Amino acid sequence: MRIDLNSDLGEGGDPRAMGDDATMLDLVTSANIACGGHAGDPETMFATLERAVARGVMIGAHPGYADREGFGRRVIPMPVPAIGRMVAAQIGALQGVAALAGAELRYVKPHGALANLASEDRGVAGAIVAAVAALPGRLAILAISGTVLEHAARAAGTEVFSEIFADRAYLPDGRLMPRSCAGAVLHDPDMVVARLVRFLETGLMPAAGGDPIRLSAHSVCVHGDTPGASAMARRLRSAITAAGVTVAPFLPG
Amino acid sequence: MRIDLNSDLGEGGDPRAMGDDATMLDLVTSANIACGGHAGDPETMFATLERAVARGVMIGAHPGYADREGFGRRVIPMPVPAIGRMVAAQIGALQGVAALAGAELRYVKPHGALANLASEDRGVAGAIVAAVAALPGRLAILAISGTVLEHAARAAGTEVFSEIFADRAYLPDGRLMPRSCAGAVLHDPDMVVARLVRFLETGLMPAAGGDPIRLSAHSVCVHGDTPGASAMARRLRSAITAAGVTVAPFLPG
Amino acid sequence: MRIDLNSDLGEGGDPRAMGDDATMLDLVTSANIACGGHAGDPETMFATLERAVARGVMIGAHPGYADREGFGRRVIPMPVPAIGRMVAAQIGALQGVAALAGAELRYVKPHGALANLASEDRGVAGAIVAAVAALPGRLAILAISGTVLEHAARAAGTEVFSEIFADRAYLPDGRLMPRSCAGAVLHDPDMVVARLVRFLETGLMPAAGGDPIRLSAHSVCVHGDTPGASAMARRLRSAITAAGVTVAPFLPG
Amino acid sequence: MRIDLNSDLGEGGDPRAMGDDATMLDLVTSANIACGGHAGDPETMFATLERAVARGVMIGAHPGYADREGFGRRVIPMPVPAIGRMVAAQIGALQGVAALAGAELRYVKPHGALANLASEDRGVAGAIVAAVAALPGRLAILAISGTVLEHAARAAGTEVFSEIFADRAYLPDGRLMPRSCAGAVLHDPDMVVARLVRFLETGLMPAAGGDPIRLSAHSVCVHGDTPGASAMARRLRSAITAAGVTVAPFLPG
Repeated sequence: MRIDLNSDLGEGGDPRAMGDDATMLDLVTSANIACGGHAGDPETMFATLERAVARGVMIGAHPGYADREGFGRRVIPMPVPAIGRMVAAQIGALQGVAALAGAELRYVKPHGALANLASEDRGVAGAIVAAVAALPGRLAILAISGTVLEHAARAAGTEVFSEIFADRAYLPDGRLMPRSCAGAVLHDPDMVVARLVRFLETGLMPAAGGDPIRLSAHSVCVHGDTPGASAMARRLRSAITAAGVTVAPFLPG
Repeated sequence: MRIDLNSDLGEGGDPRAMGDDATMLDLVTSANIACGGHAGDPETMFATLERAVARGVMIGAHPGYADREGFGRRVIPMPVPAIGRMVAAQIGALQGVAALAGAELRYVKPHGALANLASEDRGVAGAIVAAVAALPGRLAILAISGTVLEHAARAAGTEVFSEIFADRAYLPDGRLMPRSCAGAVLHDPDMVVARLVRFLETGLMPAAGGDPIRLSAHSVCVHGDTPGASAMARRLRSAITAAGVTVAPFLPG
Repeated sequence: MRIDLNSDLGEGGDPRAMGDDATMLDLVTSANIACGGHAGDPETMFATLERAVARGVMIGAHPGYADREGFGRRVIPMPVPAIGRMVAAQIGALQGVAALAGAELRYVKPHGALANLASEDRGVAGAIVAAVAALPGRLAILAISGTVLEHAARAAGTEVFSEIFADRAYLPDGRLMPRSCAGAVLHDPDMVVARLVRFLETGLMPAAGGDPIRLSAHSVCVHGDTPGASAMARRLRSAITAAGVTVAPFLPG
Repeated sequence: MRIDLNSDLGEGGDPRAMGDDATMLDLVTSANIACGGHAGDPETMFATLERAVARGVMIGAHPGYADREGFGRRVIPMPVPAIGRMVAAQIGALQGVAALAGAELRYVKPHGALANLASEDRGVAGAIVAAVAALPGRLAILAISGTVLEHAARAAGTEVFSEIFADRAYLPDGRLMPRSCAGAVLHDPDMVVARLVRFLETGLMPAAGGDPIRLSAHSVCVHGDTPGASAMARRLRSAITAAGVTVAPFLPG
């Protein structure tokens, strides 16, 4: 058994951020790199790409709404086809910088409000899948497990992988509890680790107010931008290994 | 004999701009499309790309300093390697959108202050040439005739073409008179047309305060963003044809 | 009888725009100046302010969502209190530049999607009214006639004036027909002039699919950013004068 | 004897930053708040203003080049009068938000490359002083001790205060050693504290490769954005108090 650990990186615009990112790059096996939309600029992309290459971390694009002030966490109203163009421009920008860093993009994982919308809206999911398919490099999609985006990618013949969150509460229908709800984000490291180990052993994840739900996952998303993030990531990685599961990218190197 | 007509397009951020751009796309044979740095966004890129494809106009990327307030006309101090990353990200973004528009980028022409700096600074020229060479698609470079950028591209084995300006004054050493000098931009259409026709017939261009200079050119840059721009472009195109010169892209279709 | 003519100005980011703005500043009696949110920057603000002062045009702030790519025409999801802060920052920025231009802000008119939302949403209207009231200078509000914003300002004791649109279709309930509907914007100058003259004489405005509606207005909004805008503004101004109505600002100089 | 402690705040665009800022606001007596140019947005401004008011911290504006990618550390080429407009717009924006936070701006301290240029260039210093003088609120200027900006403000009759840096190396002519030089920034807390205490007792500051120089200062700048920043600030504050010097704002409350 094996599983990937992914984290959103290259999202800091100030000198402090890379310190945390460098630590996370030692712990994860795939890096979702911001593409200049909700965060990121050519220098941050390049520095993150170089470090990821040096550590053998698999590289993905992390496009989001072009809304820095909202950090990509707000739905910016725009026509569905414009979402496809926005995503294509962002992935293309990262591919351009990757060409200089000797790095290869392997997958795309949408960010924030765009990811949430693509999890439920077929039009948006379809626009993202079509944009990814049109770009060079045979990019895969990393989708939240069980979402419309995952199904849309599979239906379109695009290689798709799914992720779960160890530190987010789930609803009985398999969706993530919205961040605005109390208890949506779990902060107790022991509980987070316990949930993940149980999932790895049984395929079951606790759901708020209901029976545990069955999820499939190729990757676990590890947050890199919260206090104690790297400590949590280190514990999760240890717990996975201790459970006899190998931590490795979901695509071959 | 043949020559290309190029124009900077996709630089307007408001609804008015596309009107002018649509007219220019009927008159030129190659379009330098802004990539989101000094101007441009995914929607403007896509609309311009689609129209260029429909008219059979050759497509180039037009990267510039990421400085919208200064419209790319100010040198933003940055390390030379960062210039390469900035250029790669912008070209990549346009390539991403082009993939959705069924368009193919053929060349790169730097914009404004970046173009001026690359005309004289070997480090900057080299960073741009290296970035272009690293990107997929075997992109050519369109450089101002006789500049350091043209020589750097040729020395690096990158396909390079040169452009002249019919409505800009030249200095005896072959450089463009800076825009800040009186008389740097010519506004009299008769004079502009006469200069171009003479150049096409003799290879000589008048130089301020000196003998005419010999220039080679594959393309003539036609400004699209000044009052009367399309009228001037129409006259130039007619004059070129009347002089027995074919207007055609500098790369085969 | 008298009425004001207002227009949105300082919204262009390129050199072409000021040409149109300069013409409009000869025709209108009040200028809604973009504040750096949906459009505008310190240089555009300053140039517009200086010209407005020189022509004796009354000056207002024109805040909008901080969304240049969408030109302030999209609702950016944000908490209501954050709208107040955004509006205060934008008005303050214009006041800062006005201090250098020897200009005095007299009123505030929201832009685009923010204006539309404030026309119907009490929370948003209240946040704008509170922000305007907190700022120095005893600023008035210019609201679309009959909207929630107009009522909220009046209820709060803020001086408020109302505007109508001669070139927009109205619904029987007094609201503007949304731009997305066919026929929402009228392009026939004769019809636009006729509607305005009739309104000035009777207080009645035609409504789509219903009886004419009674509106009150201190100002007529004249669009400055469409082809033929200044010609339309000139015709409207002439028609107003010909109808025996004086064109003058709604606040004393 | 008394001295002020100032720190640049409100410069973080992500959720992590406020944590550090909140700590710094417990340690300093004046807060230089970013105004949306090199950093900052209305929400960050408001949150920082509210906390500063609650703690009785004096509030200043911290304008810089409108260059987020460069964090205001690059000189953006622009005409001198445009610098005045840029500064006025930024201070005005902060004043607008301050009106909603019940806060009052007392002074202006330029940021980064703008501060460095104003330290040596009379034109730039004069433009900043003139902009500050034109704005309402009788704002003072906080300048690096001994610079052209300090002299220009004094000559113009603007209230001016001076600051020193305990963790930056000085040159024998009183200027700061440029950041690009080795040893420009001191990281050893013991040395930093020793330099400050000696300065407070003698008015003398060590200078690289020369005799100690005499500086006058109303405030000490404490960096808030480096690892260990708050620990350093806490030590400096304790050392000042232990030396019998009162930590207090340079303007009365």
